[in-house]
Amino acid sequence: MRILGVDPGTVTMGYGVIDEGGEEAKLIGCGVLTSPRERRVAERLWRLYRGLKEVIQRYEPREVAIEEPFVAKNIHSALAVGRAQAVAILAAGDRDLPVYTYTPTQVKQAVTDYGGSHKEQVQEMVRLQLGLSSPPQPNDAADALAVALCHLRQRHLLKLMEGEDVGGY
Amino acid sequence: MRILGVDPGTVTMGYGVIDEGGEEAKLIGCGVLTSPRERRVAERLWRLYRGLKEVIQRYEPREVAIEEPFVAKNIHSALAVGRAQAVAILAAGDRDLPVYTYTPTQVKQAVTDYGGSHKEQVQEMVRLQLGLSSPPQPNDAADALAVALCHLRQRHLLKLMEGEDVGGY
Repeated sequence: MRILGVDPGTVTMGYGVIDEGGEEAKLIGCGVLTSPRERRVAERLWRLYRGLKEVIQRYEPREVAIEEPFVAKNIHSALAVGRAQAVAILAAGDRDLPVYTYTPTQVKQAVTDYGGSHKEQVQEMVRLQLGLSSPPQPNDAADALAVALCHLRQRHLLKLMEGEDVGGY
Repeated sequence: MRILGVDPGTVTMGYGVIDEGGEEAKLIGCGVLTSPRERRVAERLWRLYRGLKEVIQRYEPREVAIEEPFVAKNIHSALAVGRAQAVAILAAGDRDLPVYTYTPTQVKQAVTDYGGSHKEQVQEMVRLQLGLSSPPQPNDAADALAVALCHLRQRHLLKLMEGEDVGGY
């Protein structure tokens, strides 16, 4: 099972791809898509959408996990996050991939067993869980991998509880 | 010149299509796309995206004008509006249509010459400007037509000022 995790932002959109491989998760690829701040919103969203579709085409994930904050610094940043989420959701929909969303707290809890963890702890746990020698860079890519790992763990938990496959939407 | 106006929302997305016809604008079509509140966000966005692409396919507008509020009741509604805007922007991008955004104040100013106008005034002015016997229904469709009329007026103003065509992005 290959999972794409996305940390949505309209300036930087982090992505991380992992494979479920027996006991361990394996890093397949990660990075960030950027869109220049000085460009107008429509152009930036088109660019991110095209970029994410290319990522999906290249890595062929089966499921997509997206971070979905319910809080934001202000209205302006909430609008931007909403737009970035939609870009990720529609890019996944373009390939009929099921989408799962997780709050930042769920991601932190799943990756570090402690919802209030610092960003550095999350990145260190991503490094450990993927068996890497150093934390994946840049930060937004590591965050995207944390979302993917969160989804992997959620799948395992649901499988244990229900004894069957996890349904997407 | 055919213009599609969009009033973006994730529960109801209004659309309105007008033609520039000499002195007057002409109503071509309007309506709303809806997505059931009880469905999950991804499914709702896919549905709106598909619906808006169908509208674009049916009416073949040359430019798209989208309302873009800079304020929102709260973070939750700002996230939802951001998602709906992205749906409209990406649906336009799918056909390489230039997108223009206008704040609600700009729309009200353009349609009623008074930025603080009540919703009912905007709808009445939309009725008058399109030469209709009654205001277009439902409200979100009328709002979308107001955005399209705002863009038409902006085009005229820019043409007058610059003596040339308006550039999109």
